[in-house]
Amino acid sequence: MKFCSQCGRPVTLTVPVNDDRPRHVCPSCGAIHYQNPKLVVGCIPVWEGRILMCRRDIEPRRGYWTLPAGFLENGETAAAGARRETLEETGATVVDLTPYLMVDIVHIHQIYLMFCSRLLAANFHPTHESSEVRLFKEEEIPWNEIAFKVVEKTLRCYFKDRVSGRFAFRSDKIETRGSIGN
Amino acid sequence: MKFCSQCGRPVTLTVPVNDDRPRHVCPSCGAIHYQNPKLVVGCIPVWEGRILMCRRDIEPRRGYWTLPAGFLENGETAAAGARRETLEETGATVVDLTPYLMVDIVHIHQIYLMFCSRLLAANFHPTHESSEVRLFKEEEIPWNEIAFKVVEKTLRCYFKDRVSGRFAFRSDKIETRGSIGN
Repeated sequence: MKFCSQCGRPVTLTVPVNDDRPRHVCPSCGAIHYQNPKLVVGCIPVWEGRILMCRRDIEPRRGYWTLPAGFLENGETAAAGARRETLEETGATVVDLTPYLMVDIVHIHQIYLMFCSRLLAANFHPTHESSEVRLFKEEEIPWNEIAFKVVEKTLRCYFKDRVSGRFAFRSDKIETRGSIGN
Repeated sequence: MKFCSQCGRPVTLTVPVNDDRPRHVCPSCGAIHYQNPKLVVGCIPVWEGRILMCRRDIEPRRGYWTLPAGFLENGETAAAGARRETLEETGATVVDLTPYLMVDIVHIHQIYLMFCSRLLAANFHPTHESSEVRLFKEEEIPWNEIAFKVVEKTLRCYFKDRVSGRFAFRSDKIETRGSIGN
């Protein structure tokens, strides 16, 4: 941030009164511009024991496999956002969304919230964001071609919990950049 | 948002290519400025069966009682943010944070994430943000003086679950403005 979004004048980085960390502050109009983590919402879409994944056709990590997920928008609940992202990226409709895994990714200012979900029907197709969309059995998951560490973590949790059939909500974190994206 | 935070020129509200909703876009430098919901993190701080609450000394809802909570900052996990807010608002240190309740408050673009927690010691005091900080037994909770609907919801969930002793994670939403803040 270089300019004030309220008045268009240059901002400075300074600690406001009664605050404890530097913010982008406008010396002209006094506006304080806070920057906060964003929530990324996504799904584990399940159909007859198989998981719907998509091969990314956009950067970052184009060509790698992921679970449908994206930034939550103003005006929607977290579950509605996860449903929308799944529809946009795979063409599929998911139902029975249950919060399953929250992952703090501190270094990129993101919090992932992944939902367990069920495909309403085996209807899906490539989309603007995904060159390929398909169902995977556990033994077919392309572990070496996963786009992001958080996706690998989500899938490993899911398959572990599937043994017991209990999918209790849990939280986790990713603290450093890894070899496979965030 | 009226001006581009990258170049300082006026922005327009328009739907970018490959998007489906209006964004603040800069016609000069091309920057697209997304606006997303913010995560509010907070605690139910428990000490010997009593709940630590604080009387707000800042607007909105000055003079009303609340649970410690505030905006998650860049660079911290959700649990770390909830701990920090509790310390800032009550002077108390909480431990054993467990995600407990997520509440979508769509109309104000906020997602609340409340943690169950335990006070490390019965040490707390008034702060810059709280004119009074005290422990409440269930029958002492000032239900008619609660600052926000999400706080009332959190407390009612907690006391209900306490009967069974099982505090499974759950999600809920608040869809309209009520008589008691958000």
